[in-house]
Amino acid sequence: MKLFRHGPSGDEKPGLVDAKGGLRDLSGIVRDIAGPALSPDSLARLRALDPETLPKLPPDVRLGPCVGGTRNVVAIGLNFADHAAETGSPIPAEPIIFNKAPSSLCGPNDTVIIPKGSHSTDWEVELAVVIGRRASYVHANEALSYVAGACICNDVSEREWQMNRGPTWTKGKSAPTFGPLGPWLVTLDEIPDLKNLAMSLDVNGERRQTGSTATMIFDVPQLVAYTSHFMLLEPGDVITTGTPPGVGLGMKPPRYLKAGDEMVLRIDRLGEQRQQVIAFDDWTAKVSAGEPTD
Amino acid sequence: MKLFRHGPSGDEKPGLVDAKGGLRDLSGIVRDIAGPALSPDSLARLRALDPETLPKLPPDVRLGPCVGGTRNVVAIGLNFADHAAETGSPIPAEPIIFNKAPSSLCGPNDTVIIPKGSHSTDWEVELAVVIGRRASYVHANEALSYVAGACICNDVSEREWQMNRGPTWTKGKSAPTFGPLGPWLVTLDEIPDLKNLAMSLDVNGERRQTGSTATMIFDVPQLVAYTSHFMLLEPGDVITTGTPPGVGLGMKPPRYLKAGDEMVLRIDRLGEQRQQVIAFDDWTAKVSAGEPTD
Repeated sequence: MKLFRHGPSGDEKPGLVDAKGGLRDLSGIVRDIAGPALSPDSLARLRALDPETLPKLPPDVRLGPCVGGTRNVVAIGLNFADHAAETGSPIPAEPIIFNKAPSSLCGPNDTVIIPKGSHSTDWEVELAVVIGRRASYVHANEALSYVAGACICNDVSEREWQMNRGPTWTKGKSAPTFGPLGPWLVTLDEIPDLKNLAMSLDVNGERRQTGSTATMIFDVPQLVAYTSHFMLLEPGDVITTGTPPGVGLGMKPPRYLKAGDEMVLRIDRLGEQRQQVIAFDDWTAKVSAGEPTD
Repeated sequence: MKLFRHGPSGDEKPGLVDAKGGLRDLSGIVRDIAGPALSPDSLARLRALDPETLPKLPPDVRLGPCVGGTRNVVAIGLNFADHAAETGSPIPAEPIIFNKAPSSLCGPNDTVIIPKGSHSTDWEVELAVVIGRRASYVHANEALSYVAGACICNDVSEREWQMNRGPTWTKGKSAPTFGPLGPWLVTLDEIPDLKNLAMSLDVNGERRQTGSTATMIFDVPQLVAYTSHFMLLEPGDVITTGTPPGVGLGMKPPRYLKAGDEMVLRIDRLGEQRQQVIAFDDWTAKVSAGEPTD
């Protein structure tokens, strides 16, 4: 099952993808793809629906982040050995946890804004998972039962702020639009093997990142279990699990995003994201002029 | 005006302190002390109420965290010169930002649980502020207009996890009950000078922390403005602004919390917190036996 959220930013409604890839509105069934709607029982009820009975949506409706009400965006650093190498970092002995501000989340195809004063905004295609029920001190062998589904996250990062304005990474990971999430929240029954999903990210049609979840250092069950020993995870919380090699920081010389760039992200089974990049000043000018900004 | 939240954990209702210090229920007026209820207009409406017309609450009602729906708990590290010195850290040239999991928040007098496997759980009395309206790229001279009010936060910290399980501090700052918040959300009209509030923390009746917001390196307006340049702050978000000297880590040898300890925190104008400390295993035994845990 593929769930999504559609409509204006901040006022999204729930939706479900039908067997032919059409978009259907779930507003009459659940209030949002959030909180209690993410529980195993709720997902089973949604799975039992006949999508043909749900109202059709236009195929070009704006998509929001595929989960609502997220209070905690946990991100895992340097979780691919080859990405750790390209950043000049040692392979971590245990998962590195950092946070993105929940207000950084946006729709999968929303415009990504280079923040004011940024000169090193970078891309990171990642597999993210969404928590479906409260998880505390869970074991890896039961961890997936706490996961509602998976999705793509672009863990957009300002490198100078991340690395030189520390010691924590929060400042470089939290700007508005730094977390495109979706398009779909894909339930795990549609993903035969979380450990074998091809991942890619293109900038202006050039392949920059190529990877597979097969080379993750810590896998999804380990990450959910590990994180749940340090904090209580709640429905709607997001764990984004790290990026494969090919980020701008790792290029020689480094190459970062500039206004007018287009990013395309793909992960097997999870669909595709496509984002235009805009400079902060151009974005504020559009807002001032009342032009559409998504 | 002093606002609070009362009732069972996770199901708190709004309340207001009357002129005699009595507790009054605001359920008939606003749904929660959260989101839109924190806006300047909403606060003005609440301030215009006659508290005598509101239902009385018993004085021993459980208090929850004084704000609900918090999505982002931003904490400032090493913001008192003398505290930086006791931890052996240099004085920061700009604010250090880290995150606490929102699920770490609890009521001001709830039991604090020493997490499983922890040997270095420590205390930190802090002045916290709650954001009242969306703040992005705000200037320090207007920053207070984005603040709904102030409260006490005990930034409970697991030092080994914070310092040796890094590089970020999240792991040591996020366990359940690591963020007692309240008792009251005190609006700024009741605080003549945010830069001159005495702060203290006692453990088992012994004074451990003595300080004043007068010795903060970066003041509240600077911190709100600074943070808003890295992320969009939303209503209900919390910024806790750092701790004065006297933490367990700074004692020679270090002394940490143990089961049975009692912490008492006080900040001028903001009231008092009082927490019993319990070990994780004792807490789970109580839960299993159906005994009250707050």
